[in-house]
Amino acid sequence: MGPIRFLPLLAVLLPVHSISQEPLFGFEPDSSKAERALEAKFDAAINPQDQRAWLQKLSLRPHHVGSPYGLVNAHTMLGLYRSFGFDAHIETFQVMFPKPKTRVLELLGANGYKAGLAEPVITSDPSSRYANEALPPYNAYSKDGDVTAQLVYVNYGLPKDYEELDKRGISVKGKIVIARYGASWRGVKPKVAAEHGAVGCILFSDPHDDGYGQGDMYPDGPWRNGYSVQRGSVSEMTLYPGDPLTPGIGATANAKRLRLQDAKTITKIPTLPLGAKDALPLIKALTGEVAPADWRGGFPVTYHIGPSKAKVHLKLAFVWKLVEARDVVAKLKGSELPNEWVIRGNHHDGWVCGAEDPLSGQVALLSEAKALGHLVKTGWKPKRTIVYCSWDGEEPGLLGSTEWAEAHADELSQKGVAYINTDSNGRGFFGSEGSPVLRKFITEVAGDVRDPETSLSVLARLRARDLATGAPDAKKRATDKADIELGALGSGSDYSAFIQHLGIPALDFGYGGESTGTQYHSTYDSFTWFTRFIDPTFAYGATLSRTGGRAVLRLADAEKLPFDHHHFADTVADYLKEVVDLTDKERKDAEETNKLLADGTLKAAADPTKHYHLPAKQAEVPKLKFDALTAAVARLKKVVETAEKPGQTPASWNETMRLAERQLLGPGLPGRPWYRHVITAPGEYTGYGAKTLPGIREAIEARKWSLAQSQIQVVADTIDRFSSFLETRLGG
Amino acid sequence: MGPIRFLPLLAVLLPVHSISQEPLFGFEPDSSKAERALEAKFDAAINPQDQRAWLQKLSLRPHHVGSPYGLVNAHTMLGLYRSFGFDAHIETFQVMFPKPKTRVLELLGANGYKAGLAEPVITSDPSSRYANEALPPYNAYSKDGDVTAQLVYVNYGLPKDYEELDKRGISVKGKIVIARYGASWRGVKPKVAAEHGAVGCILFSDPHDDGYGQGDMYPDGPWRNGYSVQRGSVSEMTLYPGDPLTPGIGATANAKRLRLQDAKTITKIPTLPLGAKDALPLIKALTGEVAPADWRGGFPVTYHIGPSKAKVHLKLAFVWKLVEARDVVAKLKGSELPNEWVIRGNHHDGWVCGAEDPLSGQVALLSEAKALGHLVKTGWKPKRTIVYCSWDGEEPGLLGSTEWAEAHADELSQKGVAYINTDSNGRGFFGSEGSPVLRKFITEVAGDVRDPETSLSVLARLRARDLATGAPDAKKRATDKADIELGALGSGSDYSAFIQHLGIPALDFGYGGESTGTQYHSTYDSFTWFTRFIDPTFAYGATLSRTGGRAVLRLADAEKLPFDHHHFADTVADYLKEVVDLTDKERKDAEETNKLLADGTLKAAADPTKHYHLPAKQAEVPKLKFDALTAAVARLKKVVETAEKPGQTPASWNETMRLAERQLLGPGLPGRPWYRHVITAPGEYTGYGAKTLPGIREAIEARKWSLAQSQIQVVADTIDRFSSFLETRLGG
Repeated sequence: MGPIRFLPLLAVLLPVHSISQEPLFGFEPDSSKAERALEAKFDAAINPQDQRAWLQKLSLRPHHVGSPYGLVNAHTMLGLYRSFGFDAHIETFQVMFPKPKTRVLELLGANGYKAGLAEPVITSDPSSRYANEALPPYNAYSKDGDVTAQLVYVNYGLPKDYEELDKRGISVKGKIVIARYGASWRGVKPKVAAEHGAVGCILFSDPHDDGYGQGDMYPDGPWRNGYSVQRGSVSEMTLYPGDPLTPGIGATANAKRLRLQDAKTITKIPTLPLGAKDALPLIKALTGEVAPADWRGGFPVTYHIGPSKAKVHLKLAFVWKLVEARDVVAKLKGSELPNEWVIRGNHHDGWVCGAEDPLSGQVALLSEAKALGHLVKTGWKPKRTIVYCSWDGEEPGLLGSTEWAEAHADELSQKGVAYINTDSNGRGFFGSEGSPVLRKFITEVAGDVRDPETSLSVLARLRARDLATGAPDAKKRATDKADIELGALGSGSDYSAFIQHLGIPALDFGYGGESTGTQYHSTYDSFTWFTRFIDPTFAYGATLSRTGGRAVLRLADAEKLPFDHHHFADTVADYLKEVVDLTDKERKDAEETNKLLADGTLKAAADPTKHYHLPAKQAEVPKLKFDALTAAVARLKKVVETAEKPGQTPASWNETMRLAERQLLGPGLPGRPWYRHVITAPGEYTGYGAKTLPGIREAIEARKWSLAQSQIQVVADTIDRFSSFLETRLGG
Repeated sequence: MGPIRFLPLLAVLLPVHSISQEPLFGFEPDSSKAERALEAKFDAAINPQDQRAWLQKLSLRPHHVGSPYGLVNAHTMLGLYRSFGFDAHIETFQVMFPKPKTRVLELLGANGYKAGLAEPVITSDPSSRYANEALPPYNAYSKDGDVTAQLVYVNYGLPKDYEELDKRGISVKGKIVIARYGASWRGVKPKVAAEHGAVGCILFSDPHDDGYGQGDMYPDGPWRNGYSVQRGSVSEMTLYPGDPLTPGIGATANAKRLRLQDAKTITKIPTLPLGAKDALPLIKALTGEVAPADWRGGFPVTYHIGPSKAKVHLKLAFVWKLVEARDVVAKLKGSELPNEWVIRGNHHDGWVCGAEDPLSGQVALLSEAKALGHLVKTGWKPKRTIVYCSWDGEEPGLLGSTEWAEAHADELSQKGVAYINTDSNGRGFFGSEGSPVLRKFITEVAGDVRDPETSLSVLARLRARDLATGAPDAKKRATDKADIELGALGSGSDYSAFIQHLGIPALDFGYGGESTGTQYHSTYDSFTWFTRFIDPTFAYGATLSRTGGRAVLRLADAEKLPFDHHHFADTVADYLKEVVDLTDKERKDAEETNKLLADGTLKAAADPTKHYHLPAKQAEVPKLKFDALTAAVARLKKVVETAEKPGQTPASWNETMRLAERQLLGPGLPGRPWYRHVITAPGEYTGYGAKTLPGIREAIEARKWSLAQSQIQVVADTIDRFSSFLETRLGG
């Protein structure tokens, strides 16, 4: 336990936090009492020392998908689950996973430089000694390539950055781009670069964003040093996640596979990541115009856009082979409702030793399983079936979870109640995102988990932070004691297949905000680093277990599933307003730009000594007809208000609630049918970040007006089907 | 003339700018036509080649106050004014001006470093060769001192930065502070440091704000390199500007002087400025907590707050002697109203060779004088007396202008119509600040000056920029073709004594926004640098002449002074609303902080592993009574609306308008009676930045509530006196 200096004083100032005795959402008063007693036993069975020991063992050596130590770990976890009393097995998929064979990056010319592309041993950190077993720094699913070209700096490499280049008349056609990590899922960067004609893509960690500009560098402090590299996948996961060769189906041994050259998620251009030390000579080599102020990072040089005078040579070759992804799947069969599944997952593969990512979450999950096992051993049985999953191959592209979800799609569509995800964990405040139907539920859970640094619940502590330093809307929510904000799910962890492909309500949460520093996807994300800087006592690991386990327990044992669509209806109404406003704003902006172009204002305002290109005349933005969707949303609100009331039998309620979210699956998003949920998806040009009402919103953003109009109808129809489903099942 | 690529195309797209033929503000229709014809002649007499030649000559060698080349320059300008036909003389004051004798700064200990404190010769720039004549990098009016202490980083060194230190329990008592330049007048930094108990103060140019973080470094580009140092005064000019020994009176040979030790504007602690290269070892030596995100600058290290483990030795000694400040004052006597003076000024002293600051403005002013002389030689005579002033000793503390204004206070109070100031000039857009009574006037002037890069007036071009990229309020003003925004005058150039001590309406303007880069107060602010990067063709120097000269001509020849108090009344009403809102905000903030303290929220939100101190309980903010001021402002508005109408005789109008602003002088601001204007003053903790209704606003900011209440009455009485003056003189 860390030094908790304020605790004695707090105890005087604050009433000791008392767990509410109100009946739990979804429980009758009597069963609610029993549930609380059970949860107290559960809490007591969580032992942070287990987590320390497991983390040390599992993070001992590199354990990426298909690696020898990954197999060792899978069997370690299998053994643990079985010892806890779970019915566990390893389920294996054959997934395409490229490993680097050749990695060359050199700056040519008089001030030439050959990139080191390696993370040296740090003597105080034993995990850094396994370079021979580790994947070296690279971007998985980069295509092979050998290109030599001038270099252009493209900031974060997002569409709006290329608009800035266009203004200056700078093209990346035939060039290699260099983009800093951040502001999007990394796979978006080579995709956008290729769309603009670049022939290669270099990614780097800028020390302003992720290095000495944030804090002291490892091993002195927790932040990325000049050698530390962010590995990572650059597949086009926004098309579909999982194995590139088996979209939509499980990558079992005999699955029908695409040919590699037909897999659309492989990058179009070779892509390689660099640490700061390797990136600096490239940034220095850039000439031409000075980069805009918000493009400049932390190197002690003036950032220029380029092109560089000197050329850069980038040569990459990979071994393209199928490897085994080993998911460890462990069940406690439901005693009353065995065909209703509560699924809980966290991945176990890391890019290297992966102590924080993913093992800090994995060991919290194992703690939960152990404590559940303890409850079973002392007489408890879950009503519903509980499925604990330790996923493999999350890092390259959510491989293990996606293939498992695809392989069991029919069964999951029938039985899936909810999917609860965690990943990396830190110290501090509860943070969550998920399906609105679970917002009331997770708020209640957070209200009953004790924060280890204060005498408060993690909900109360989150509200204290919002009151002390939050934005106005967060402050208001905290003052009103409203349910916590639950952001929409984009992508970046294993919930994707469940919510976006199968329509199973999902949650994703963890703790953070007080631990600072990251070695994200580097060799230095190690046991030594994690226990020095992130959660030294595993106090928040234990808290994560008490949160995740409590959510599982309640979902498994509730008489009536604690689902609530009021927030959902309100949230969809908010999204509708956003897309209507977005269209109006686009129209107003286009009209204003055209006016300022036509009357010469933009020319008059420009510096005639600069080579700025004025914007092209903007196409007119039509008035989209939102009527169908407006009507559907109004009906939804009414149906929820009249239908979701006490009185239904548990059986009817449970089946309706279990299957309701499935009604929100449409025909698939335009151009990427794997994503079927009409309310939320990862953005095509954000990746991690969610786009809500994605079919409509992205069509508007891309100025595809007739597509936007037809998507309005698709979404309206889907929401209407959802409303009819609730209305028919629950009356109202 | 620079490459003006857009001009041909613009000529097609835009109606050729035609100067309005509406009667000019203050002129009868006939005299208005004559005036416009005169201005066309004036414009034609402005020659940018003159400016280039004068700039090259005047910036040839270092010319700080009291220097040999400063004397040469004074005689050069005297000769020019006389050759133009002005009645010119040099007026001399004896001012206390310290020059460095000893400058030592060393970091002690194992990683010791001795600061170079010098700007080396750049072979491509001849001006950098005169180190033997130049003032070395130093801060004028630092006291002598020899201190050895640990170092603490204080960001910009402003009161709110010390609040951040307090939160962390870090004291600067007995320490040497290091503060980056920026965000305030530099003299505020040692003042605040001393108030917090520091024993020494080091200022430095952070490369993020003023170096490679902004653009390419000199001589490759226009930005400050690692050796370039910002010299500058650190006197407490917010108490009074001018000679430290003669506050309120002219520093003539026989003036009664304070003893040096009684001069309150000398710093309390020794203070020295550094370039980036000398600062880096000091920043590296800091240990302890990582500095907050917005404190971090452009060095490639993690910024820590300190204290440093190693100590720093700072030793400074100065030669404290009186030197001669030589103002060059040149008059054209008014033919009809010789006792109404239109005053135009720009300083001539530089910290070193001072090409941009101040000579770019000085040569524009000389161009005006030459063109006015040309008009005189071809038969014109000004109605009112025109006084052109080339000030000395502006850099150390507005010495020349302040002493002249103090020495001639009685005459100026009688005769002063307006003071028009310029200083450094660049390329781009018209920017101005000044007395609201001149807002309508200067808008009209800007509408009649042609921008050299477009076919537009500088007013139209400014509006084009506001329409293209301005904030919403600027956009609205441009759309409505409202009068230009005229910011309140704070301090930082020679208008201060005129507006703030004598109550003479003032304007300050120049061009900028397209030229980028600065060598502010360094050796490298040279002819070579200026003509490479700032205004190579002197197109904007000529434009400044056409603006300043046009303003002088119109004020000198108007039948009725083009003054208008409608904006003034509105502006004061805005300021009143601001101080009322400020008090309410302070009250609300204090109440909220106290609530969050009392209920434990702030403690609950804090990271218990950090040493943050919670804020102290806030004192209650009383409800101030603004009634008297509200009534005075309402009356002001009414009086202006009814009184300022056509119909008065010119003589009555002119006298009333000339003397009106004098009515806004009160008894002097609390603690700094030299500043008498009740509407605007430099802020005690901003310096450059204006505080409006300063007596009230600064009392509120300092939480001196009874002072605030009494200042409300002082301001209300002063405004009432102003209203009565207008009402009595103009009727209404």
